[in-house]
Amino acid sequence: MNAPDAFALTRAAGATLTEQLAGQFAERIRQRLLAPGARLPSVRDCARRHGVSPHTVVAAYDQLLAQGLVEARRQRGFFVREGGRGPHSAAPDPVLAPAKAAAPPRVAPVDATALIRGMFHGASQLPAPGLGTLPPDWLDLPLLASALRRVLTHGDSALALQYGQPAGDSRLREALATKLADFGVRARASQIVTATGATHALDIVSRALLSPGDAVLVDEPGWAVEYARLTQLGMRLLPVPRGADGPDLNVMATLAREHRPRLYVTVSVLHNPTGHSLSLGDAHQVLKLAEAHDFRIVEDDTYAHLAPNHLPRLAALDGLQRTLYVSGFSKILTPSWRVGYVAAPPALVERLIDVKLLSTLTTPAVLEQAVAHCLEQGSLRRHAERVTARLDAARHRSVQLAQAHGCRFVTPPQGLFGWVDTGVDTEPLAHTLLDQGWLLAPGHLFHATRRPSTLMRINFATSQDARFWQALGAARRASSKQPVQ
Amino acid sequence: MNAPDAFALTRAAGATLTEQLAGQFAERIRQRLLAPGARLPSVRDCARRHGVSPHTVVAAYDQLLAQGLVEARRQRGFFVREGGRGPHSAAPDPVLAPAKAAAPPRVAPVDATALIRGMFHGASQLPAPGLGTLPPDWLDLPLLASALRRVLTHGDSALALQYGQPAGDSRLREALATKLADFGVRARASQIVTATGATHALDIVSRALLSPGDAVLVDEPGWAVEYARLTQLGMRLLPVPRGADGPDLNVMATLAREHRPRLYVTVSVLHNPTGHSLSLGDAHQVLKLAEAHDFRIVEDDTYAHLAPNHLPRLAALDGLQRTLYVSGFSKILTPSWRVGYVAAPPALVERLIDVKLLSTLTTPAVLEQAVAHCLEQGSLRRHAERVTARLDAARHRSVQLAQAHGCRFVTPPQGLFGWVDTGVDTEPLAHTLLDQGWLLAPGHLFHATRRPSTLMRINFATSQDARFWQALGAARRASSKQPVQ
Repeated sequence: MNAPDAFALTRAAGATLTEQLAGQFAERIRQRLLAPGARLPSVRDCARRHGVSPHTVVAAYDQLLAQGLVEARRQRGFFVREGGRGPHSAAPDPVLAPAKAAAPPRVAPVDATALIRGMFHGASQLPAPGLGTLPPDWLDLPLLASALRRVLTHGDSALALQYGQPAGDSRLREALATKLADFGVRARASQIVTATGATHALDIVSRALLSPGDAVLVDEPGWAVEYARLTQLGMRLLPVPRGADGPDLNVMATLAREHRPRLYVTVSVLHNPTGHSLSLGDAHQVLKLAEAHDFRIVEDDTYAHLAPNHLPRLAALDGLQRTLYVSGFSKILTPSWRVGYVAAPPALVERLIDVKLLSTLTTPAVLEQAVAHCLEQGSLRRHAERVTARLDAARHRSVQLAQAHGCRFVTPPQGLFGWVDTGVDTEPLAHTLLDQGWLLAPGHLFHATRRPSTLMRINFATSQDARFWQALGAARRASSKQPVQ
Repeated sequence: MNAPDAFALTRAAGATLTEQLAGQFAERIRQRLLAPGARLPSVRDCARRHGVSPHTVVAAYDQLLAQGLVEARRQRGFFVREGGRGPHSAAPDPVLAPAKAAAPPRVAPVDATALIRGMFHGASQLPAPGLGTLPPDWLDLPLLASALRRVLTHGDSALALQYGQPAGDSRLREALATKLADFGVRARASQIVTATGATHALDIVSRALLSPGDAVLVDEPGWAVEYARLTQLGMRLLPVPRGADGPDLNVMATLAREHRPRLYVTVSVLHNPTGHSLSLGDAHQVLKLAEAHDFRIVEDDTYAHLAPNHLPRLAALDGLQRTLYVSGFSKILTPSWRVGYVAAPPALVERLIDVKLLSTLTTPAVLEQAVAHCLEQGSLRRHAERVTARLDAARHRSVQLAQAHGCRFVTPPQGLFGWVDTGVDTEPLAHTLLDQGWLLAPGHLFHATRRPSTLMRINFATSQDARFWQALGAARRASSKQPVQ
């Protein structure tokens, strides 16, 4: 394994094996790759895995204990401490007195950021099957650079030197209104508000439409960042099971009746993590429920450019009356530019702009104009065609490999993500594979409440390496021999 | 007046004079330049100002009444309706049933966004004395474009195609750590988290450190966006009077004792709107109060680059123990790029990163690297030297004009902003001058609670036009003849 910081100890290093082992666990706890409450491997397992003596492992765990990073539970082993996020927060907070520390600010469930941290981990030179985006070598850097250069040379210089319009660059909003028509969504440019990526658009919508304590329907499994943000803002999550047939409409109706939610947040097309797309019939039923129980819908269409245009959007059926439509360009142009937007009912636009102003004032016009250029010139469309063709081939190969190694797809493989049953708990599996340099997205990260899961999300673009599936297969076999605790 | 949409009626237009007048008031209400609760001019005044008959004005006001934008109060005239933000929200909300509408989401006080909307209004070709930034012709577009081109040509292509680091571009964070040393603030790059402008940095800090209901000390007068954001997040504002001698320490001590605030948000250097900078002695006293009453401090150093390096920063005295330091580049490079940051005590960094991830995931690396380039090459420093020299000259001229027209400076003129007493209520004054194409920043916008004010903030860079002061003088004289209601 040549990955730069794979979990390998070296006898020639300046630090002792104990120090190296403790240091690597500490780093993983700090990175949230080992979440609070997670159990460290047993001493025997850990010793075997790293080729050291049990004594070395015990000494390393004792160091972690002394640093306040883990706690020992009698007869059960060592567990990552709640709130123990590593050297920073393990040090006593110098400011808050104990009386105040008793009522700490509401923080996101730590689990929920673990996957995001993993996305940025960059630990390995190997492809990352747990990645949430297209890998860099699938993207078109010359396309991006030439669009930016074009704006620098021909753009409106006044726009480059002022805050810009509160709703976002008008050229981009016009181009988006045209693009949305391809999906059957009819929006005027005046209904569109740009944001620092689709995540920011979702954040703006949450803050503009909800108050702490409000109930919100969410798909489960679903996207961890959305759960975490809603929780951090003080909302009550109402998870609705989402399967190959769409959201469970009976559960949704019961929850709506009992909890009077204000909002349903959903990915209709190429849902993350299942890859499922809502059928026309289910879309109609969801809208009827929303009307009957008087909640709004936020449709997160982050994967829009990887799907056929004809797939039904709730915003198209609804005519943007009750639905807000959110999307962006992270999954097709680049995640780095952070260009996203929301298209909303006219009556809500000013409220969304107010929240945008309070959170970031405006958004960078130069990047918005470069995206507009890609839309106007058709270069985005041609790039998306190339990417989807390549993704079709990658999916075919990944599915064959997965199935050959005993994995089962829970929903029919589509789009960027596969939702895969491994038959074993994927949380310890993820740690084993991370030791070998492979980033996994284990199933528990896609649930609103922490629970063991045998599922994982794979990215078809980064799961074509036979070595990954061999490593996974070996880890599965080893893991299924362990007694379930 | 040749301003494109100055408040001028034309008899040759397709619409009647009544329709034009009503339309222009409606637009101004929608833009929040006429805030809810504001009184429309009397029929006689309005008729005189626009050279139309009183009958035309009555008919126009009736149209606004019919549209739900204003309400008539017996014997008192017409007032902009609370919540009546123009055509969008004046239309009945098609989704929320009355039962739910009774508990609407917490929204920012509308006043607070009025100034921001004004900043983006672009109503006039005239200089805008109420502007919050340097005017575009003071900025250096070739500098920005060449930095961006440099990054496009020589930058790390992998960075352009991935989310980037959660804390922000490491090259920028290193450059910032070096730059902060100029202000006496010692921060390692690992203590710095970048954001979509200083506004976003303040938003991240608020969300990471506070819970709804917490009390927060703020300077008054102060920056409207900060009041509005804290209010929108559910915090209780504790305004501390800020004058030429610094914050009132007695008031601060009393508020701290009685309300146990968690945070004090302040601009130490070139405070907005007073231009005042905190003395070393007052900085020491503020920190002692913070320690005694156990609150943290957020120091917003947005105007850092327009001030001498030697002015004391709270973060420098405190060594970033209890203080978080926020700044950005909107007031020196361009507001359009939205590059800002927070430098924080080590124990808080991970918590800030979590909130950043939940709000926007990451921030655009290409713009952060371009700013880093400007810092590393010294081009930002040279540009700032040119700007401050020009600002010194502009301030000299503006102060002379202001004083010649009977205005008095409440605090000694420094930096970008002057805090000026006009002797008359500046809210109606602002409307009169806006009719003539001049954007004002009236004093009530800088107060946490709405109250009449004879003060206004001027931007020295955009207040050098003698015509502005003549127009202001004439409006003052006319206004001081009106009976105060």
